[in-house]
Amino acid sequence: MDSIKELREHFTKLKRLGYILALLGWDQQVYMPKGSVKARAEQIALIKGMIHKKLISPKTGKMISNAEKLKNLNLIDSAILREAKREYEQATKLPIELVTEIAKTAVLGHQAWEKAREKSEFSIFQQLLGKMIGLQIEMAEKLDTGPTLYSNLLDLYEPGATADWVSRIFNNLSQKLGVILEKLHDSSDKPNQSILKKFYDSEKQWKFSMEILKRLNFNFDIGRQDKSVHPFKTSLSSMDTRITTRISENSFPDCLFGTIHECGHALYEMGFKEEIHDTILSDGSSLGIHESQSRLWENFVGRSREFWIYWYPILQKYFPKNLKNYPLEDFYRSINTVQPSFIRVEADEVTYGLHVILRFEIERKLIEGEIQVSELPSSWNEKMEQLLGITPPNDAKGVLQDVHWSGGAFGYFPTYSLGNLYAAQIYSDALKKHPSLPEEFNKGEFSNLLAYLREEVHQHGKIYRPLELLKKITREELNPNYFINYLEKKFYSIYKI
Amino acid sequence: MDSIKELREHFTKLKRLGYILALLGWDQQVYMPKGSVKARAEQIALIKGMIHKKLISPKTGKMISNAEKLKNLNLIDSAILREAKREYEQATKLPIELVTEIAKTAVLGHQAWEKAREKSEFSIFQQLLGKMIGLQIEMAEKLDTGPTLYSNLLDLYEPGATADWVSRIFNNLSQKLGVILEKLHDSSDKPNQSILKKFYDSEKQWKFSMEILKRLNFNFDIGRQDKSVHPFKTSLSSMDTRITTRISENSFPDCLFGTIHECGHALYEMGFKEEIHDTILSDGSSLGIHESQSRLWENFVGRSREFWIYWYPILQKYFPKNLKNYPLEDFYRSINTVQPSFIRVEADEVTYGLHVILRFEIERKLIEGEIQVSELPSSWNEKMEQLLGITPPNDAKGVLQDVHWSGGAFGYFPTYSLGNLYAAQIYSDALKKHPSLPEEFNKGEFSNLLAYLREEVHQHGKIYRPLELLKKITREELNPNYFINYLEKKFYSIYKI
Repeated sequence: MDSIKELREHFTKLKRLGYILALLGWDQQVYMPKGSVKARAEQIALIKGMIHKKLISPKTGKMISNAEKLKNLNLIDSAILREAKREYEQATKLPIELVTEIAKTAVLGHQAWEKAREKSEFSIFQQLLGKMIGLQIEMAEKLDTGPTLYSNLLDLYEPGATADWVSRIFNNLSQKLGVILEKLHDSSDKPNQSILKKFYDSEKQWKFSMEILKRLNFNFDIGRQDKSVHPFKTSLSSMDTRITTRISENSFPDCLFGTIHECGHALYEMGFKEEIHDTILSDGSSLGIHESQSRLWENFVGRSREFWIYWYPILQKYFPKNLKNYPLEDFYRSINTVQPSFIRVEADEVTYGLHVILRFEIERKLIEGEIQVSELPSSWNEKMEQLLGITPPNDAKGVLQDVHWSGGAFGYFPTYSLGNLYAAQIYSDALKKHPSLPEEFNKGEFSNLLAYLREEVHQHGKIYRPLELLKKITREELNPNYFINYLEKKFYSIYKI
Repeated sequence: MDSIKELREHFTKLKRLGYILALLGWDQQVYMPKGSVKARAEQIALIKGMIHKKLISPKTGKMISNAEKLKNLNLIDSAILREAKREYEQATKLPIELVTEIAKTAVLGHQAWEKAREKSEFSIFQQLLGKMIGLQIEMAEKLDTGPTLYSNLLDLYEPGATADWVSRIFNNLSQKLGVILEKLHDSSDKPNQSILKKFYDSEKQWKFSMEILKRLNFNFDIGRQDKSVHPFKTSLSSMDTRITTRISENSFPDCLFGTIHECGHALYEMGFKEEIHDTILSDGSSLGIHESQSRLWENFVGRSREFWIYWYPILQKYFPKNLKNYPLEDFYRSINTVQPSFIRVEADEVTYGLHVILRFEIERKLIEGEIQVSELPSSWNEKMEQLLGITPPNDAKGVLQDVHWSGGAFGYFPTYSLGNLYAAQIYSDALKKHPSLPEEFNKGEFSNLLAYLREEVHQHGKIYRPLELLKKITREELNPNYFINYLEKKFYSIYKI
C-alpha cells in the first residue's frame, strides 16, 4: 500500500501549499497594507507556480498509475486516487500558455470590468470579455470531460453535472418560481422592509454577529471572523477556517445574513473527519454542496420564524431605538420581503433562482456560440424582462453587475441555485429525522441540526461526489420540489395567501 | 551581465519564500486560532525545506561561481554576490542532519526551558541545554569563518565581529558603566517610578501608541501595528513591515517604549532604496545595526526630555487621573530611573549593558569549553553580584530568564549592546550635522531625524557590512565613548550629580 501512501502525502504537500496560498489571499483582503499589492502578487504567483509544477510533474502521473494498480482500496483511499487523478488530468490537459493567457486576461478583464461598471458602459468591457470567452471555449475543448463544451466548464465546479441536466432542472424551477412570484405579487398584504434601512451602529452589528456565531457553534478555537470589503470563507488548514463579514450601517441585513451564510460554509469545513485532515479530500464535495450549507443556515434557519423567536428579543436590546416597538412578526416579514430587483446579491429567496437561471442560459449560449458578446446587453435585458418582469435602467444594474465572467468563471453560477435545491432536500430530510429542530431554534439551540449535518454531510468532505452524497443522505435523486414546497409554504403564509 | 541577473533573481525568489515564511509566523503570533498550531508547524517546515533545498542546490553554487568571473561589478551587484555567497556557504557547510538535530533540540529545549523557568529549577533544562551547546560547538567547527569557535557563531548575527573584538569593547564598557552606576547610587536625589505602575487603561494605551507611530512617520500604507504576547517586527515584503506591541495595564512603559522600539526597527526596513527591494540586500546590515535603530528611537529620542516636552501634555490628556498633577520633570525622571535589577528586558539604559556583558562572558566560556553547563547557575549568580551588585533569589530570575539559549542562539546577545554603541555614535553624528534636532522634538517634529537616518543608514539595507557602514557615516571605528558620554551627560543631570 506504499504507493497510495506516497500519493496521499504528495497531495497533502500540495494541499499545504494551497493553504499557504489561502493565507496570502486572506491577509491581502483583511490586513495587508495597500502598498504591498505588487509584492504580494509576486508571492502568490510564486506559490501558484510551485503548485502547478509539482502537480503536473511526471512524478505525479507515475504515482497515480502506481496507485491505480492496487486492488481493494478502501473508501478514503479510492476517493484520494479519484480526486488526485481529476486534478492531475485537469492540470495536464491545459497547456501552460493557455493557463497564463487566461490569468493575464482575467487581470486586465477585471480592470476593464470595474471601469465599465463604474461608467455603466458595456463597450469598455466587451473586447476583453470576448477574448475571455474565446479562451474559455479553448479550455473547454482541451478539458473534454463531458458531452458539451459548457458541460466541461460546469464540471470544474460541480463534478459530474452536465448542461442538459442543469437545463432540465432549471426549466422546471423557472416555471414554478414564476408562478409563486405572480401569486405573491397579487397579495393584498405585503411586508415592508423599510425598518432594515434605518441606521444600525456598526460596532453593535459586529457584536451581534459574533454572538450569533458563538451560538451557532462556530468554533473559535479553529476559526475566526474578521471584516473585509467582500465577505468570504477560507481555510488555512483543516483546523483553521476563517470568515469575513461586511458591515453597512444603513443596510442591516448585509452583516447579519452575510455572517450566517459564511458561518454555514465554515461549519462544513470545521466538521471534516480527522482522517482526511489536510488531505486532498479536506474540501467540500462540490461548490453546490458547499453552497447548500451556507444557504441552509442563512435562509432555512436564519430567515425562519423560529430562529427569530429566540434572537429578536436580543436584537431589540442591541437596537432599542429602531426595534423596541417593532413587533417580531413584522420583523420576520420584513426580512422575507419578495421583490423583483436588478441585483442578484440583494435578491430574496424566491427571485434569486431566476437571477441564476438568467446567467446560466446566457453563459451557456455564449460558450456554445449561440449568441455573440455584442448581443449580451440586449439578451440580458430581454431575459430579465421575461423572468422577472423588469428591465435594468443601465448596464451597471444589468449585465455588468457580477465579477465572475471578468475572471473567467463560466459554469460557476448554476452552483448557487443547485445549492438552494440541495439545501431544501437535505433540510427536509433533517426535519423528517429530527422533527423537533424548529422548536429547538425557538430556544436558541442549534447543536442538533449541526450534529445531523456533521454526520450526514460535513465529516465526509470530498469523499463522495455531490449527487452520490445527496442520494446517500436522502435516498433520492435531486428533486427541486423540496425547494418549491418550502417556498410555497413559507411565503404564502408570509403574504397571507 | 546575465549571470549576476540570474543570481539576483534566484535570491529574490528565496527572499519571497522568506517573506511567505514571515507571514506564516506573523499570523501564528497575531491572529491564528490556537487549534492550528500543528498544521501551521507543518506549513512552516514545508517552506523552510523548500528554501533550504533551493539554497544548497548545485545550481546556486554554479550561479555564484559564474557571477564571480565578472569584472567591475557595481556596488549593489557586488554586495548581492557577497551576501549570496555568504548564505550559500553557511548553508552548504552545515550537514542537513546537524541542522535538523538543532531544530529538534530547540523545540524540546524550549519546552524544557519553559518548564524549568516556571518551576525555577535549572536541572530540568540542564541536559537539553548541554546537548544544544554540543551542537552549537559542532556547528561552529563546521562554519569555520573566524579565529575562534565563538567568533564563528557571533559572525552569524554580526558579520565580521570576533570574540576578541567584542571582548575589548565590553571590558572597557563594563568598567565605565560600573563607575556611572556607583555615582548614581550615591545620589541623594533619585527619581521614583511608582507613577508608572498605576492603572492605565489598555484601549487608551493602544490609541496613544498609534498616535506616536503616526507622528514618528511610521508609514501605515506599507506597515501596520497589532498586538501579540511578545512584541516583534517582521517584514512581509519591502513594502510591508509590521510591528506588534504588548499592553500591560499596570506597567505603562511596556507598550509605550515597546512601540517606539519596534517602530525604530520598522523605519529601517521601510527606508530601503527601491533598487534593492525584495532582493537579498533588503535587510538590515546586521542585528547590531538593526538594534541601533530601535534603541536610537526608543532611548535617545523616546526617553529624552525634548520628546516629552511635546508628548507629555498629550499623555496627560489621555490619563488625567494619574498624570494631571504630576509634573513633566518628574515624569521624565521616572522613565529614566536607574536601578540594578534581575531581569534584562526590564533594565534601564545604564544597567542594560551589564546584563548583556554577563551573558556574553558566560556563553563565550560555554562554547570555548571553559565552563560546564552544571556550573551555569553559580557562574551566573557570581557574575551578577560582580557586575550589578545583586544576587538572584532563584534561577527563574537568573540564568533561566532568557529564551535565547534554549533555541540555540549563541552569539546573539552581544548585538543588543553593540546596537546601543552604534546608536550613540550615529546619533552623535546626527546632532553634529543637525544641531536643531532636539528643538524639533520639542515641537513634535521628527522628520528631519528620519531623513538623516534614511540617507545615512536605512536606504542602504545590507549593501554595506556593519563596521563599513558605521565608518562611512561617522568616519570613525566603533567608539564606545559616545555611549558613555551620552549616559554621563543625561543621567548625572537626572540624578543631580
